[in-house]
Order: sequence, then structure tokens, then C-alpha cells
Amino acid sequence: MPVNYTTPAADQLFSVAGVRLGVAEAEIRKKNRRDLTLVALDPGCTVAGVFTQNRFCAAPVQLCRKHLAGDREIRALVINTGIANAGTGELGRQAAQATCEAVGGLLGVTAEQVLPFSTGVILELLPVERLQAGLPAAGADLKADNWHAAAHAIMTTDTIAKAASRRLTVNGRSITITGVSKGAGMIKPNMATMLGFLATDAGIAQPLLDTLVKDAADASFNCITVDGDTSTNDSFVMIASGQSGACFASESDAGWHEVRAAIIAVAVELAQAIVRDGEGATKFITVAVEGGKSVEECRKVGYAIGHSPLVKTAFFASDPNLGRILAAIGYAGIGDLDVDGVRVWLDAVLVAENGGRAAAYREEDGARVMAQAEITVRVVLGRGEAAARVYTCDFSYDYVKINADYRS
Amino acid sequence: MPVNYTTPAADQLFSVAGVRLGVAEAEIRKKNRRDLTLVALDPGCTVAGVFTQNRFCAAPVQLCRKHLAGDREIRALVINTGIANAGTGELGRQAAQATCEAVGGLLGVTAEQVLPFSTGVILELLPVERLQAGLPAAGADLKADNWHAAAHAIMTTDTIAKAASRRLTVNGRSITITGVSKGAGMIKPNMATMLGFLATDAGIAQPLLDTLVKDAADASFNCITVDGDTSTNDSFVMIASGQSGACFASESDAGWHEVRAAIIAVAVELAQAIVRDGEGATKFITVAVEGGKSVEECRKVGYAIGHSPLVKTAFFASDPNLGRILAAIGYAGIGDLDVDGVRVWLDAVLVAENGGRAAAYREEDGARVMAQAEITVRVVLGRGEAAARVYTCDFSYDYVKINADYRS
Repeated sequence: MPVNYTTPAADQLFSVAGVRLGVAEAEIRKKNRRDLTLVALDPGCTVAGVFTQNRFCAAPVQLCRKHLAGDREIRALVINTGIANAGTGELGRQAAQATCEAVGGLLGVTAEQVLPFSTGVILELLPVERLQAGLPAAGADLKADNWHAAAHAIMTTDTIAKAASRRLTVNGRSITITGVSKGAGMIKPNMATMLGFLATDAGIAQPLLDTLVKDAADASFNCITVDGDTSTNDSFVMIASGQSGACFASESDAGWHEVRAAIIAVAVELAQAIVRDGEGATKFITVAVEGGKSVEECRKVGYAIGHSPLVKTAFFASDPNLGRILAAIGYAGIGDLDVDGVRVWLDAVLVAENGGRAAAYREEDGARVMAQAEITVRVVLGRGEAAARVYTCDFSYDYVKINADYRS
Repeated sequence: MPVNYTTPAADQLFSVAGVRLGVAEAEIRKKNRRDLTLVALDPGCTVAGVFTQNRFCAAPVQLCRKHLAGDREIRALVINTGIANAGTGELGRQAAQATCEAVGGLLGVTAEQVLPFSTGVILELLPVERLQAGLPAAGADLKADNWHAAAHAIMTTDTIAKAASRRLTVNGRSITITGVSKGAGMIKPNMATMLGFLATDAGIAQPLLDTLVKDAADASFNCITVDGDTSTNDSFVMIASGQSGACFASESDAGWHEVRAAIIAVAVELAQAIVRDGEGATKFITVAVEGGKSVEECRKVGYAIGHSPLVKTAFFASDPNLGRILAAIGYAGIGDLDVDGVRVWLDAVLVAENGGRAAAYREEDGARVMAQAEITVRVVLGRGEAAARVYTCDFSYDYVKINADYRS
């Protein structure tokens, strides 16, 4: 059960003019399951993405990077679940290429105008014939109001489909932003997430979009961790169709600040949904680190806490075993940290200061916060002005069960 | 149940002339449990240690560092379990100091000649009066053939006592090496382990011992991980009494190479015992990384594999889900790694090469190795001559159970 998250209803996911989606059952790995998603883009869209830093990055990620760096307009995305097409060497690259060619043939564009995405089991070959055989059905299903189906069709170990949508009016024009994401395990994105797709009918010039996708990833998918494992397939792609008529070419354009903030808010919502549905998660934890000398050291502390199996099992047990949090702060890698200057709160309860337990801290106050489904751990390092946030979940029996059983 | 490990019998743990040990029940945290160990050293011993790099290092660790850096001969060690005396600020330092003074009073030495060690729950104050009250019983119990009792008295969440002992003849003299260790969770030592104590009746000059303790820690306790959490209290101490009559002052001394190798072998045995008894462990895994440009990058890869919850749950399930191992290699942090040059074996089975699954690999071969209780994952990076090893265990329901229940 995800922590405080439900998928928005289909009619709450607003269509984005210029973007149509279709899904199909291609039997990539299992029968009777929507596992193929096609996204067709009208001419005139700008597209930007960020991808995994894993050196064993998947074949489709390699092609995405190449096609985005090329000079042809991107006109389609194709996403399969079941098989990640990662750790598949030259055969995997051929399979991803063949996938792009098939999509190009179906839609009347070139293979270079297609971005391919795969997610699922690593080290197994993509059954490209089955994928190709499923494409016509996905093509026939293409429609603008199909985000809800797409959110479901990109799921793997997710227990719930993840999507977010909002509308705002800027410069007198209505702008829509809608996105979907997937992921529940192997989650510690490094410059991107498992899979996240966000589209807007605002027009955003390519250089502005390139910057925005990085900023949005840093504020959202790059702040989450379930198990500290960076996937081979992490991808986050942003599409701007321009069909709202509201177009932006520079950060100084009127209304840009609002549009940017709304897009980042949707990205944060999609990223948090992944943590809320983290494998075995029973709690959603925000680690807010402040008072650091740099964002980098704040992130180190946030991830040390967010990755610690001891901290995560203590949250699962609702046990205010705060020494485990202090230990994680201590080994986060800040060599000159003065621990006597560190303060730690659980929500509003001050639990540690002056190198030890806060004088006024009472165990029952900590226990009360730990029993909640949503908890903020606030760490003030007391050595600067920088801050960072990490979103994570607890570590339960079910995480072990899910990952010991997956594949079998 | 530990993986292929049983505590040596009391008569297999050879006494080390010059070293006497005594244990007692001091009710530090629980009744009816040996939780206090005293080690008395004859005059003439050299002593060296390495300690946690955690910035929230415990009060006793701070005192150990200070006393070892002083000019007084170390004459005693005192170890309590139950309370770690970490995250306890100034009151914790006073408690550790009072402990040393009490031991000094009992044995007729100064507080500066005593090394204190604590292990157990973090962020709670050490009940120093109960510890002091237990000291006379520990003093009355002091004897040379008491290593077996000491191995038991330093346990916390350990399910089995850990000790190792061996004798060798060098330059016509019999030399004895005996050690004990403890630890099962919060195990990813950084320059030391939870607690490890090793004594020899060889004489080893202080500069040589200072180097040896670091080398031995790097080859043993610094190669293990259970959960990636570096404890606040990690300490590894080596004692050389000289009472065998075989003394060493320089690396070029005859026989030193053999003594050094035997001491390191005992340290490795003690460190591996901690992993074999890792919380919830059902398998013992050696990650051997070769062909790196530096030891540092080999260690990064070894720890990425050894820490990955996905890899560790796959081992628990005996599932050759090898993509998880490749993913961990890929995110270990070697920015210019050419994955096409990486080869991976499970024991003697080649599972991956050329960026993907090895052509001759059959799933049943992988499954056969994964079903074993002891497994070696061998990774050849193909870019240099450096190598490193990491010892780890799998990740089971019981890890979650133990750590969700601990304290309660």
C-alpha cells in the first residue's frame, strides 16, 4: 500500500495539446498486461531529457542520448516494461534501433525522431518481434486523453500508477502540465529517475527546456531514494508542445517563473509518488538538511540517513532509535563536522543537540512522531547556509519479500 | 545461525603470556548477562589501535585515542556492552573518564594507562556506578586462559562468540596469537571494526606495531560490510607482550614476515566471523574485484555490490538476478568505466562479458552457485592491475526483524 498516495482519476489528468498516447498488450514478458506505450508528438514540440549516470546504462538510454543530440525533431516516444534491455551489449543496441525503426515506419517519421525506453529485468534480451507486433494496436489507441492508461502501462513492481496534472493561467493563456512516472525499487536516481515523462502545452525554447529539465530533476527525481540502487534505465523526459500559444524563450520572459515553478511542482509530485510506493514502504520520510557549507554536503547527510538500513528499519518499527540517525550523520563524509553544533528534530521535536540527546527530549514525544505515516527529519548542521532535501521511505519485511521473489 | 562458523572451544584459544582477562555481570543494561570485561596487561606490552572515522565517535573512542597518544604505558582495557556511550556529549566523556579512573584504582595504575570500550545502544548514558560496582568481580576473575569467556562477554546482537587463535614457531621460539571480536549489525567499518582485540606474546616495537595494526585492519575489518552503517564505536586494538622472547623491531628482522602474516590471518578470521554472523545472514559472500586502476576503485565496486539491497536480497533468494550486480558495478562511481571490458564470475561460472550476458552462460549454472552458503563474486574490470576484496552477507527477513525489534 502506498503511503498517502492515490492515482488521480482519468478526468483529472488533463490532455496536453500536441501529445497523444496509446497503449497495448505486447506480451513482452507476461501475457494479459499492458506493457507497451506509444507517445506521438505533433510537429513543433521541443523535447529534453536527463538519463542515468550508471555506466551499465541500457541500450535505449544510449539511443535517447544520441537522438536528442541530433538535429531531427523528436516525434515519438516508445516505452516497454518487462525487459530493461540493459546489460545486453551489441544485441541490445540492435534491438533498440529496430524498435525505433518500427515506430518510425508506423508514424511516418525516421528512427532518429523516436526516443525508446525500456524498464524491467536486466541482462535479458528484448523480444523485439513481439514489441513490433504490438505497435499497431498502440498506434490505433493514440489519443490525447490517454494519460491514465499510459500511467498504468509503464508500471513494473509499482503497486499503483503515478501521474500528476495541473493547469495555470499565465499571460491570459491557460497552460496545462501533465506527467507520469514509474518506479518502486532500484531507486536512487543520479541525474534522473526510473522513468518520468512530463508534457506541457507551453512552448519552451530548447535551451530553456534543457536547463529546466536539469533543474526539475535536481529538485525532484534526484532527491529520492528507496534502496540506494541507481538503475541502468533512469530517464526523465520533458515535452513542450507550444500549442497553448504561450511560449517562452528566456528566463526573463513574463510568466516564466510561474510556469517553471508549476512544472517543477509536478515533477516533485511524480518523484514523491515513487517513494510513497517504494517497495514495502509504510512511511514517507522527508530528510531536510540545513545549515551546511554546500548543497553537496547537505545531500551527503540526507542520503546517509535515507540509505541507512538501520534508520529505515527503526522507522518501520516506529522506534525512536535516534542514535542511528546521529551515527549516519557522523559517517556521511563531512570530515571536519563539529558534532556538538548539530541539531536534529523529528517534526517539531528537538531530539539532539550539543553532541547528544536534547535536555528537554522525552522518549514519548519521539515515539509519537515515529508512529506517523509522514515524518520530517530536520538536521541543522550549524556551519553554513546551504540546504538540501532527500525523500525516502522505511525498510520493511515486504522490501525483502518483493525483491527475493521478483523474477520468480 | 552464523554461516559456517562455530566458536573455537576454550582450550583452542591459547593463552597469551602477559595478558589476563576477567568478566563480570554488571547489569549495564540487562540482568543475568556477562557485560563487563577487564583485560590486564603486564608491564612491557606495546599496544596500538585504529578507531572509527564516524564524526559522532563515542566518548570511550575519544579517550582511547588520547591515552594511546600519551607517553604512559597502557596497562588495561575495559569493555562494556549494553550502552555504547556515544552521542552522549560531555556527560559521556565524564563517564568514560570515571571508568578509567575506577579501573586504574583497582589495578594500581593511572587512568591514562586504561583504554575504555563501549558497545550497545547509542544516545543513552552509561550507568557508570553499576559498571564500577562490577569491576571488583571482573578483577577477581582475571586469568590468562579466559579468552573464551571474554569472547562471550563482549557480544551484543551477535548470535555467536567470535575468537581465533594460532601458534607458530619462528626463530626457534613458539609465538601465540589470540583475538576476539564482536559485531553483527551497523557494520561497515572505516579504519576499524565494531570491536576487535588481538594479542600476541611476540614483542613488537611500537612503530612496527603502529604500522601492522593499520595493515591488518585494511586486510580484515576494513573489508567487511553487513549493512553499510559505520558504527560510532569501531575499535581494533593489538597488544604485543613480548613474553615469548621473540621480539621484532624492524620489517627486515628474520621471521617478521611469518609473524605478520599469521597476525593478519587471525584478524581476517575475526573480521569474517562478524560477517558470517551478520544480522539475518544466511550466506557469506566474497566480492573479489581485480583488474582495476587502483585499490580505491576496486573497493568502490566491491562495496557497491556488497551494499546493494537488491543484490543482497537476490542472494537470500538464491536467485541469479545478475543484472543487479552489473547495475551496482555501473553505479559504483568509476566515471570512465568501459563496461564492454568487464567480466563477472559466480565462483567459476563466467556470467557476464562484452557488456552483457556471457554467451556460454546457462541460468542453471548460476542458480547452482547461488544456492551455496559461500559464494565468490569475481569482477575483473579489465583496466589495470589493482585488486581488493569485500566480505559481505545476504539480506533477509531476519535483518529487518532484528533491527525493527532491537531495543524493544
